[in-house]
Amino acid sequence: MNILILGGDGYLGWSAALKFSKDGHKVTVVDNYARRTLAEQTNSAPLLQSYSLTEKSRLAKDFLGLTIEVAILDLSVSENMFQIVRQVKPEAIIHFAEQPSAPYSMRGFSEAQYTLRNNLDVTFNCIWAIMEEVPECHLIKLGTMGEYGTPNIDIKEGWIDIELNGRSDKFLYPRAAGSLYHTTKVLDTDLLWFYTRTHGLRVTDLMQGPVYGISPFEEEIPDVLLPHFHYDDIFGTVINRFLVQAVSNYPLTVYGHGGQTRGYLNLIDTMQCIDLALENPVTEGELRILNQFTETFSVNELAKRVQLAAAAIDIDVKINQLPNPRLEKEDHYYNPENTGFTELGLKPNYMTEPVLERMLRMILKNSDKINRDIIQPRVKWS
Amino acid sequence: MNILILGGDGYLGWSAALKFSKDGHKVTVVDNYARRTLAEQTNSAPLLQSYSLTEKSRLAKDFLGLTIEVAILDLSVSENMFQIVRQVKPEAIIHFAEQPSAPYSMRGFSEAQYTLRNNLDVTFNCIWAIMEEVPECHLIKLGTMGEYGTPNIDIKEGWIDIELNGRSDKFLYPRAAGSLYHTTKVLDTDLLWFYTRTHGLRVTDLMQGPVYGISPFEEEIPDVLLPHFHYDDIFGTVINRFLVQAVSNYPLTVYGHGGQTRGYLNLIDTMQCIDLALENPVTEGELRILNQFTETFSVNELAKRVQLAAAAIDIDVKINQLPNPRLEKEDHYYNPENTGFTELGLKPNYMTEPVLERMLRMILKNSDKINRDIIQPRVKWS
Repeated sequence: MNILILGGDGYLGWSAALKFSKDGHKVTVVDNYARRTLAEQTNSAPLLQSYSLTEKSRLAKDFLGLTIEVAILDLSVSENMFQIVRQVKPEAIIHFAEQPSAPYSMRGFSEAQYTLRNNLDVTFNCIWAIMEEVPECHLIKLGTMGEYGTPNIDIKEGWIDIELNGRSDKFLYPRAAGSLYHTTKVLDTDLLWFYTRTHGLRVTDLMQGPVYGISPFEEEIPDVLLPHFHYDDIFGTVINRFLVQAVSNYPLTVYGHGGQTRGYLNLIDTMQCIDLALENPVTEGELRILNQFTETFSVNELAKRVQLAAAAIDIDVKINQLPNPRLEKEDHYYNPENTGFTELGLKPNYMTEPVLERMLRMILKNSDKINRDIIQPRVKWS
Repeated sequence: MNILILGGDGYLGWSAALKFSKDGHKVTVVDNYARRTLAEQTNSAPLLQSYSLTEKSRLAKDFLGLTIEVAILDLSVSENMFQIVRQVKPEAIIHFAEQPSAPYSMRGFSEAQYTLRNNLDVTFNCIWAIMEEVPECHLIKLGTMGEYGTPNIDIKEGWIDIELNGRSDKFLYPRAAGSLYHTTKVLDTDLLWFYTRTHGLRVTDLMQGPVYGISPFEEEIPDVLLPHFHYDDIFGTVINRFLVQAVSNYPLTVYGHGGQTRGYLNLIDTMQCIDLALENPVTEGELRILNQFTETFSVNELAKRVQLAAAAIDIDVKINQLPNPRLEKEDHYYNPENTGFTELGLKPNYMTEPVLERMLRMILKNSDKINRDIIQPRVKWS
């Protein structure tokens, strides 16, 4: 398949480039390095400095024999989006090209403004480029489980049937996100749904939970080809932060009560999910929404798991409950559905001790590069 | 009260400026004439050319003794928004400053892009200017009944309680708008709700139906002070278009079956509603959503009413069903609630024959100025 990956420099974008190129697809990646720039501006460097995309593409050719075409473009500029879509004529677009950090979006006005404009503009341009250039293209868009927030009822997969006074209808499941970043994904979904139902787009919108893992493959690949590993409080996930804190002899920073529960998944399963979406495209005018996670954990459970995995390699880890810098429920009901992907054939790789151990060992190997100033919270929600 | 009106050159914005200034409030209006520019670009001039805002302000002083402060600023530029809010320090902001035309937003890429960016940016800037400069200010924001679309269940007022598997929660009523313009209002509501619940804003979001009427007052005012009257297919409402068609001996252009039903209200009642919202402000962290209409009509019913009102002044009107240029249900269930404003004290002024007759007579008086080229549909939905 001819696949265009938007945001191909990111953790998921670069992983997908390697994975789908290795699977024999024709892959083109686009990025403008926005996440690199913002990470540098906020003193949030990843653990390993990464090469440029063109260098990574060359290294992927040298080490793995893979061909990955690269374009460096800002896709929030519509001309760039139209140009690359016209040039590549993709059968599928995988869209990761958004400002990905919730804390970044909550730092202040200009960060919020950038997040809102960039994320909406890229999605909007992508929708229009598809409508004008490749109307049959399957758009696979990265949303987030965070769109739903933490409602007091079960979280269905994208849609909900509502009965009222003896009548019924099907609606988008109502959303209530916990950060401006997550809210931009809600707006994306609104836009995608509008253009899907009025202009016949073909869209899979992935409500993804936080992803963990070092590599998109089971087998070893050279370190220079690994996707970036952010562990700070702004661009890192809670799992990466905990693992780095464990290695750094720093108490794990649980925000508040630690009852915040979310759906998580392994990077290998993220790749499986996107592959399943690719191989099972939707029909004209269909917006398919899939909840993309394999297990749910509270922050306290995550901390315990990291503590246990660290203990297995003789690292003693303490857990510390900090005042919560975010505005979120710390004890809440959380029961999201995720049958869509298992019905498509997903075989989950769970967060086992060996999985966490592999991550801990990679971090240990590079522990001299850890910046201990960026593993405590730096951004308050208000 | 010290009131700042965003979009004060518009049909509702200028009406509100006159009304609230007359009521003794301190009124400042801001506009960048975007709607004038777009109307000119699309050959959609209003029936009567209107004076500039500063001229209208001077005339309002001369004729009615009213003081209306004027600022000409593009509020999609954040510095302008912050500056005017800092300068005026309003107790209430009434926000009409959006691209208001559904057909315009469906014309093509650049019109859609402009609508999305302008409407979101102004709302976003307004939210932030309030948070930073006047956190206790009451924001009264013009949304639209069109946010809900035409669901097969009753339309509640903004929110809905959902029960699922023995549990329940309250959510934003799910939205599904029929144009990109209406969708930008959905996104506005998402943004307002996010910042209201995380940053304690005080917001009234008005889900308003199409408004009709010549003047915000029962008593006569000089023609030069009337708000603009658009009657074309892009910036005019269906009611204005039908009335002008009636006067022009042009068959009323019903789109499709004509079963499309919406909630309508008189301009005088719109002013009453906003006044009620002003006088009954919300508390910190509250997003109050009110459905703002007094009666529902199908397009066929509207056509009949215009036909009857015209017959009463000896104008014979034909009704013509055209292929629908829009993508919308032409026969559907429609039962929206509107108890919020009646509980606050709204006394409706219905669409009676005298009301339509007054409009017809104003149009007749100016029938030499009608452009017959712009009263049939010019924009298709796809």
